[in-house]
Amino acid sequence: MIIDCHGHYTTAPRQLDDYRNKQVANCDCGDHSPLPRPVISDDELRESLEKNQLRIQRERGTDLTIFSPRAVGMGHHLGNEQTSREWSTVCNDLIHRICALYPDNFVGVCQLPQSPGVALRHCLEELERCVNELGFIGCNLNPDPTGGKWADPPLHDKDWWYPLYEKMVELDVPAMIHVSGSCNPHFHATATHYINGDTTAFVQFMTSKVFEDFPTLKFVIPHGGGAVPYHWGRYRGIAQDLGLPPLSELVLDNVFFDTCVYHQPGIDLLLKVIPPENILFASEIVGAVRGIDPDTGFYFDDTKRYIDAVETMDATDKAKIFAGNARRVYARLKA
Amino acid sequence: MIIDCHGHYTTAPRQLDDYRNKQVANCDCGDHSPLPRPVISDDELRESLEKNQLRIQRERGTDLTIFSPRAVGMGHHLGNEQTSREWSTVCNDLIHRICALYPDNFVGVCQLPQSPGVALRHCLEELERCVNELGFIGCNLNPDPTGGKWADPPLHDKDWWYPLYEKMVELDVPAMIHVSGSCNPHFHATATHYINGDTTAFVQFMTSKVFEDFPTLKFVIPHGGGAVPYHWGRYRGIAQDLGLPPLSELVLDNVFFDTCVYHQPGIDLLLKVIPPENILFASEIVGAVRGIDPDTGFYFDDTKRYIDAVETMDATDKAKIFAGNARRVYARLKA
Repeated sequence: MIIDCHGHYTTAPRQLDDYRNKQVANCDCGDHSPLPRPVISDDELRESLEKNQLRIQRERGTDLTIFSPRAVGMGHHLGNEQTSREWSTVCNDLIHRICALYPDNFVGVCQLPQSPGVALRHCLEELERCVNELGFIGCNLNPDPTGGKWADPPLHDKDWWYPLYEKMVELDVPAMIHVSGSCNPHFHATATHYINGDTTAFVQFMTSKVFEDFPTLKFVIPHGGGAVPYHWGRYRGIAQDLGLPPLSELVLDNVFFDTCVYHQPGIDLLLKVIPPENILFASEIVGAVRGIDPDTGFYFDDTKRYIDAVETMDATDKAKIFAGNARRVYARLKA
Repeated sequence: MIIDCHGHYTTAPRQLDDYRNKQVANCDCGDHSPLPRPVISDDELRESLEKNQLRIQRERGTDLTIFSPRAVGMGHHLGNEQTSREWSTVCNDLIHRICALYPDNFVGVCQLPQSPGVALRHCLEELERCVNELGFIGCNLNPDPTGGKWADPPLHDKDWWYPLYEKMVELDVPAMIHVSGSCNPHFHATATHYINGDTTAFVQFMTSKVFEDFPTLKFVIPHGGGAVPYHWGRYRGIAQDLGLPPLSELVLDNVFFDTCVYHQPGIDLLLKVIPPENILFASEIVGAVRGIDPDTGFYFDDTKRYIDAVETMDATDKAKIFAGNARRVYARLKA
């Protein structure tokens, strides 16, 4: 069994983009009234997946993808609370339909209707709907709904974030930390903002009391944990200088890293530095990097190949990475 | 010969902090008038170094440190253009005195008097003074003088940054990319902002025409290049998806990474992924991480030890990292 914990629906029919483009254009003109939902047939959904995610699952031998709306499309910095809620509902409902069409291949994770300046308690209703009514097993949490401005409160702000954490604990669902697009010209979305977002979230957890206050809360930090495993010594040293407990005690009951690192030396480091219990297999298909590595002849994002090639880890530990840890972190997963 | 390309004067006598604290407090009250310069004797300078940087040089066998003012102290986001110029002059003059006291141990790199909302042409005079009059061999360039708000133009903005690049080329000096403190609660300075700043700058160079426009311009990206070497496959793949030349052709004539990565697996990856011609030895003493790693019994920042332990690189390539590349990148270095 191989579970890919990080897939986005990046290949939706154009009606979805048309809806969103119109919504954002209206918002830019101050018009936030609801729009008719995009009409997409089951055949169109099937076609968008058969050629892409399902083909890749078959080719690479992945059994199940934990599937969520397109990350860069969440665009929490666009529109307002109401339009974000409508957009999230549309996207999450599509994921639900896909999971119903292909229950063996996909299980859902939802987008939250975050919006700049709006505390997270406004997202609880959509999270509950997705988990209790649609059978989703987690959510994506954007640590910067201001789109690269980093202007809302950090992840340890109690008034802002704790209502969401309470609901996550109550529902027993984890969150993947995942920024969306960037409206800051300093930050390329997939090259900079994604990686910086991962690193930023990790340090906010490491230097705060979030896991003291919520001992069972679980976060997946994608893209191999941003810069964190490469700088694991730096973070161990900074934690020590700050008088904190050892880094592993501080975060490894609650923080997990995915394997979206697109070359062999990066995966080698990840599997060497981070305990196998804290790594979840992922490739982010169809995602940030779509080409073939001319040095290897294989897709950059074919991360299973890199893990298979690691000789210093035995099959038992690799099985944790490929499936066991996902079952543990996503407690509602029945697979 | 071992050259450490990344050392900051983090151990200055308290008069320096007193001066700066008073300057910032005055600025907060709207008073930007000049203050009397701090009075620090040669003996005080010697004492602050003998117990710290010079002791560490002796203990670890480093011959020469490329030395600059305390990075987190630059605080470009505090005060205004005038106070930043005065503060930079005070700091750079101290570095100059240190280099004169210990010409075999230190060579100077300057802090630039950057200030939010002020284009870089205002820094040229201080750069020229430091290079032509004080014998400095480079500068530290803050890609975010707004202190974690990332609100000034990115590094490829021609009006903002190109006058500085022209002057750097004319003087034949490189810049180390180095953010300073953070006034954004999202970003811990040394754990988050430093690493994110490195990654951000790299992608801005990779996705822009800066090196087409300035083929001889050279930047050192510290802290092992932020997240970049760990995600080298991602960056190769994104460059390819963007239709850019191969990443190595795109940046490796102009971008160099230091070795401030504080554990063995990180250094192993850096030396495996990045060509030896593009790596400069550094430890950032006395810097961001000051403790002893309980797993090894040695200082986290004793990076020479990690490089010595790499068995897959021969002595010729290690000599480039320890000295040869520094001589090439810092063309004015006479050592």
